[in-house]
Amino acid sequence: MDTQELHDRGLALRKRLFGAEAVDRRQKAFGSFGEPLQHIINAYAYGDIWQRPAVPLATKSLAMIAMMAAAGRPNELRVHLRGALNNGCKPEEIREILLLVALYCGIPLANEAHAAAVEVLGDMAE
Amino acid sequence: MDTQELHDRGLALRKRLFGAEAVDRRQKAFGSFGEPLQHIINAYAYGDIWQRPAVPLATKSLAMIAMMAAAGRPNELRVHLRGALNNGCKPEEIREILLLVALYCGIPLANEAHAAAVEVLGDMAE
Amino acid sequence: MDTQELHDRGLALRKRLFGAEAVDRRQKAFGSFGEPLQHIINAYAYGDIWQRPAVPLATKSLAMIAMMAAAGRPNELRVHLRGALNNGCKPEEIREILLLVALYCGIPLANEAHAAAVEVLGDMAE
Amino acid sequence: MDTQELHDRGLALRKRLFGAEAVDRRQKAFGSFGEPLQHIINAYAYGDIWQRPAVPLATKSLAMIAMMAAAGRPNELRVHLRGALNNGCKPEEIREILLLVALYCGIPLANEAHAAAVEVLGDMAE
Amino acid sequence: MDTQELHDRGLALRKRLFGAEAVDRRQKAFGSFGEPLQHIINAYAYGDIWQRPAVPLATKSLAMIAMMAAAGRPNELRVHLRGALNNGCKPEEIREILLLVALYCGIPLANEAHAAAVEVLGDMAE
Amino acid sequence: MDTQELHDRGLALRKRLFGAEAVDRRQKAFGSFGEPLQHIINAYAYGDIWQRPAVPLATKSLAMIAMMAAAGRPNELRVHLRGALNNGCKPEEIREILLLVALYCGIPLANEAHAAAVEVLGDMAE
Repeated sequence: MDTQELHDRGLALRKRLFGAEAVDRRQKAFGSFGEPLQHIINAYAYGDIWQRPAVPLATKSLAMIAMMAAAGRPNELRVHLRGALNNGCKPEEIREILLLVALYCGIPLANEAHAAAVEVLGDMAE
Repeated sequence: MDTQELHDRGLALRKRLFGAEAVDRRQKAFGSFGEPLQHIINAYAYGDIWQRPAVPLATKSLAMIAMMAAAGRPNELRVHLRGALNNGCKPEEIREILLLVALYCGIPLANEAHAAAVEVLGDMAE
Repeated sequence: MDTQELHDRGLALRKRLFGAEAVDRRQKAFGSFGEPLQHIINAYAYGDIWQRPAVPLATKSLAMIAMMAAAGRPNELRVHLRGALNNGCKPEEIREILLLVALYCGIPLANEAHAAAVEVLGDMAE
Repeated sequence: MDTQELHDRGLALRKRLFGAEAVDRRQKAFGSFGEPLQHIINAYAYGDIWQRPAVPLATKSLAMIAMMAAAGRPNELRVHLRGALNNGCKPEEIREILLLVALYCGIPLANEAHAAAVEVLGDMAE
Repeated sequence: MDTQELHDRGLALRKRLFGAEAVDRRQKAFGSFGEPLQHIINAYAYGDIWQRPAVPLATKSLAMIAMMAAAGRPNELRVHLRGALNNGCKPEEIREILLLVALYCGIPLANEAHAAAVEVLGDMAE
Repeated sequence: MDTQELHDRGLALRKRLFGAEAVDRRQKAFGSFGEPLQHIINAYAYGDIWQRPAVPLATKSLAMIAMMAAAGRPNELRVHLRGALNNGCKPEEIREILLLVALYCGIPLANEAHAAAVEVLGDMAE
């Protein structure tokens, strides 16, 4: 496949997952300096890996939440929490992943992830 | 609930997930020095968090795989790869999680996780 | 022991270590979504592990400072710096731990930990 | 060599790399509490390791950028991005290092490093 | 560009950097399960990012060494130490990067990286 | 103070803590390539930071154990477990630190640390 096609279908999926406006904002934030990184994200992450059909998007979102919480990356965690809600994940399901984080990665990373979740889920976290 | 009950139902689930012999071996490996840690694992991890019903065990296993790969913990990754197979996860599903690791945690952690997966999956990885 | 007892004695110790108001604020911050995590913190961390008598609370606080600085967790580091002062640790003792962090975990983590310490210790750091 | 000499030549190099005012500000930020850490930084980092001649300062700056991005330390990354510019590194060179970070440490750390780079490089990043 | 071209030129560069035999061995180690990961490595890492001309290969190798040492990934560190030698880096240059690791990431990671370097450099480390 | 004095008193303390033979073996393992790193360890770690009197050596050993377990550095953990025993720490005290690791850094790092402890403590762990 042509890498331009990879990029375009990746950007389309990315906008569907996280909202067109949010993706545009992130793409512009790093200007022309950031273009090669945006190409990696659009073409290789969302145009290749995220397109693979063996696992539904909701399961990928839960795995991303597990991974970003474990790695202590609250910014990306917030992005993927929004993606998880768009993919139909429920707050109760997200919480179960974050409780595994508490036991297997420690309470501080679970605290950080809960803070991100409460911020993103808002009223849904009640 | 009494913590002894928590411990007993946790140990039972742990043996169902990973095999009674493997769990016995791990419990004995650290002797009496390791008893309080085994209590944390049996009562708090498998007796409490893993018992919660909001997410099926197979999804928890995939989240554990994501987390252990992201944290660079190949020993626990191997344990939870075995648990994932027992919970009905397919090699193709596990691989999708490890490909997300490549993009979001870097190629070296994905290499380490693939090595663990190929070892555990054996012929299933063909 | 009943897990409710574990929770109650844990919450009592946690309030003694960090102040009742600060603990109440943290408990409320994550609402009902955060209740299972608060149970882990109160019952399993402060109701079980922190209650164990083999090491005095001041030594546990210094170990927590070492651990949170090494893991790059400045929020929890600040909490345990306050706990260390309540447990009778002196600023000079805390500083020695942070200097070990510089050599064994690198200057950037020692910088982050010093910033937290200067903020929490205030005039005591002069 | 006397450790005072080590300290003095280190502080001089540090000011040349990052600007005298910025270094003074950082030294004062942690007061007398921070003096032993400043001694480690001045005497051992900049008075010893950074003085060694086998590699030019620009290469050391690029290695520092790789290291601080990989370790998720954006504060020190910003400091060393400024040092890299003072040592004659070009924005295009810095970007190549950050693209390696994307592939080998994951997209989230590359995002964090790009944000720091765009902030420090300003108009140079256009 | 077509992704197959990206893959082919990437695999060619990878073999030039690390030796055809070593690359073949790594490709085969993970069988068909590992094919998508090998595609990421060949097409996206070595076919895209490593091909970019703004920085010479030797500088990229030193940055990789800094990054893999900082991230505690001794297997990939060994691979890139071999690549660095092929790209013309000298043992004295490599050592300077590892000494920065000692100060900025801590003595344990510098020890791990020195062990890898002594193993790969062999007689060149004398 | 002269850096040679720093080095000599550091090496003497290091041998007292970990045994002359073990230190000699480690010093020789990296040959002349490793001399600058050994200077950092002897002069700056053991000749400066470890000499500071505000905290007893046993407390420093417990903090090192906390730090090396949190950072996932089992080799250095084993070294400092031996140092802790030489400094008069009891197995029961060491275990309490490792149980804090379980709760605050996660079960996998606590498992790794327990394995190191059982190996070093041997019969003392019964």
